[in-house]
Amino acid sequence: MKKIFDVLMAHNLPKAEAFINEINGKKPLFICTIATTETAKIAGLSAAGKHPEFTDYTPPADAELLLLGKCKCITGVPVTPDGIPTPALISMSSLKLADTPVLIVNAGSKVNPHIPFLDLGGKPGGDIRTGNAVGNVDEVIKRATIAGEHLAKTADYLVIGESIPGGTTTALGVLSVMGVKAEGKVSSSMPENPHGLKNEIVKTGLLAANESFGSLAKNPIRAISCLGDPMMPALAGLVMGSAAQVPVVMAGGTQMAAVLALVNALNPEVLCNVAIGTTRWVVEDKSSDLKGIISQIADVPVLAADIDFGPSKFNGLKAYEKGIVKEGVGAGGAAVAAMATTGGAITKDMLLREIEKNYGLLMESRT
Amino acid sequence: MKKIFDVLMAHNLPKAEAFINEINGKKPLFICTIATTETAKIAGLSAAGKHPEFTDYTPPADAELLLLGKCKCITGVPVTPDGIPTPALISMSSLKLADTPVLIVNAGSKVNPHIPFLDLGGKPGGDIRTGNAVGNVDEVIKRATIAGEHLAKTADYLVIGESIPGGTTTALGVLSVMGVKAEGKVSSSMPENPHGLKNEIVKTGLLAANESFGSLAKNPIRAISCLGDPMMPALAGLVMGSAAQVPVVMAGGTQMAAVLALVNALNPEVLCNVAIGTTRWVVEDKSSDLKGIISQIADVPVLAADIDFGPSKFNGLKAYEKGIVKEGVGAGGAAVAAMATTGGAITKDMLLREIEKNYGLLMESRT
Repeated sequence: MKKIFDVLMAHNLPKAEAFINEINGKKPLFICTIATTETAKIAGLSAAGKHPEFTDYTPPADAELLLLGKCKCITGVPVTPDGIPTPALISMSSLKLADTPVLIVNAGSKVNPHIPFLDLGGKPGGDIRTGNAVGNVDEVIKRATIAGEHLAKTADYLVIGESIPGGTTTALGVLSVMGVKAEGKVSSSMPENPHGLKNEIVKTGLLAANESFGSLAKNPIRAISCLGDPMMPALAGLVMGSAAQVPVVMAGGTQMAAVLALVNALNPEVLCNVAIGTTRWVVEDKSSDLKGIISQIADVPVLAADIDFGPSKFNGLKAYEKGIVKEGVGAGGAAVAAMATTGGAITKDMLLREIEKNYGLLMESRT
Repeated sequence: MKKIFDVLMAHNLPKAEAFINEINGKKPLFICTIATTETAKIAGLSAAGKHPEFTDYTPPADAELLLLGKCKCITGVPVTPDGIPTPALISMSSLKLADTPVLIVNAGSKVNPHIPFLDLGGKPGGDIRTGNAVGNVDEVIKRATIAGEHLAKTADYLVIGESIPGGTTTALGVLSVMGVKAEGKVSSSMPENPHGLKNEIVKTGLLAANESFGSLAKNPIRAISCLGDPMMPALAGLVMGSAAQVPVVMAGGTQMAAVLALVNALNPEVLCNVAIGTTRWVVEDKSSDLKGIISQIADVPVLAADIDFGPSKFNGLKAYEKGIVKEGVGAGGAAVAAMATTGGAITKDMLLREIEKNYGLLMESRT
């Protein structure tokens, strides 16, 4: 796979190269869109383990970590049940190294983070098994589009990530009802991807909404309302408002494919200015297929930060090499941006050292 | 008074000249900080007239006008009882002409605007006659400072205005308890400035808080808590976070003097990067004395947009020349920024034509 700086051109090579050349040396704004859902609390679905209510705290805690370098609404940092740290650690370290400004967008989080955040009038999401997952979709898209139009004027380009537990299941829901084959292809933060459970949940949701595979291909608003999550209208609106003016990195894995499907259905012209930015762990993942999903939707490039935690001295980081966590909180996109913004001066090694430093500090502060 | 472009160097000439030269041709971000209080509902105090509850709708409506070009939470636009339009019309026209991005900061508005806004965890303010006017001051200052640090990285300079009814009375309260002589010097949106009533209200508040003139000169947090309003901690924090990095225009009249006193008490070093931007109507006003207040606090320059509504064909705009409204919603600072950002290409005449165009459109849409 061709590399420019420590960034892999993972899909659609000519466009990927053109995109990274366009953002080379430019200054981004990083946006993290947070939300929570009842879907995330379904047993066995996400890495939240025995305490499903913890999923309500992960997004605001991630947001606090990005802005403050520590969490306020929880002690320590978000971890998997095995103690593997949140990917926000990668994002935060990348943003710090490149001195990148951060804006948190609250798209519908049950718990408000103790930091400044942009409110778009969204509410926490329901359980997609009811077929009635998200309210106020149209209004949130409108507000997010306006925000995107203004934010595009504040930076050379935007990097937009998310923190929403259970987000690959809602992604599968929206992709399916919009006619994109994503069964067995969405990613997971767990080493064993529970594809069967995700398929069951989506099937139940489709039935409850009286919809079927592809039935809402032309109705993205209803697709989100029935089977999506609150991050989607916010992120889609931000992309539509901003990508008409500046390049936009959609920072995430297979969840971004669902947002891509929405943007493609609502305003496909802006996609010429859009790339997906993710991690090597996502593009190399055998249990999911990001490229297989997005190639059904639109001809956008995929850039993947070639991060490698193999040489790390911390077991919590080494675990990423076993397929745990993989992506989230815009980690891959933030790392790509840090590398591109500095014309390659920030390398994967430098990034690992910064991540280890911050991880060490956070572990110390817990004891 | 010396003019550069159509901007009057209204106070502290050498610094005013240096400041406008520094922002000449540079690109700003415009921030409007909104909040409401019970103080504003005191009869006879603000231009709200017979319907004090209308003051709860003015700030969100102003914010909507800035971002959407029309209001959503009310029909038409905010007007005085005589039908004189909100100064947000001046801000909106200036921002449109100069293609300036806008961010609304909700510092504590009882009614949420139907647009994206930055939440700082603030709540609507009480009545300063109770001596207990604003909660959570310390936390809002902290969050606003963090926001300011990040926003400073998104623009060459910031212009920060406010929309809060009754704001000159809370300004008088905070200035007094901090030992700044402001009786008879604060501005008013009405042609007859009710100085006697403002003095009475502040006297009652001081008594209730068990404080006196100058007793909180070294305790700005308590000064806001007792006698201020929710705009103040938000705006002071935004200035402190951003002015360490980029020039900041505090866009407003005598209300900004109170914020200046707070910043001066909390972090005076940043003031070398700060100017007050206002309108000719404020600096020429015989019923108030902006320069007399700020010269007691700090050596910052005052820039005043030389806007002239005398030649307007609309009576609603001509009224500004009789001392009605004068300033608000960052009107003066937005006009200064539009002129400076374009190196003087935007003139007072061009601005008046744009304001008249937008006023005409808004009047049409009401009928």
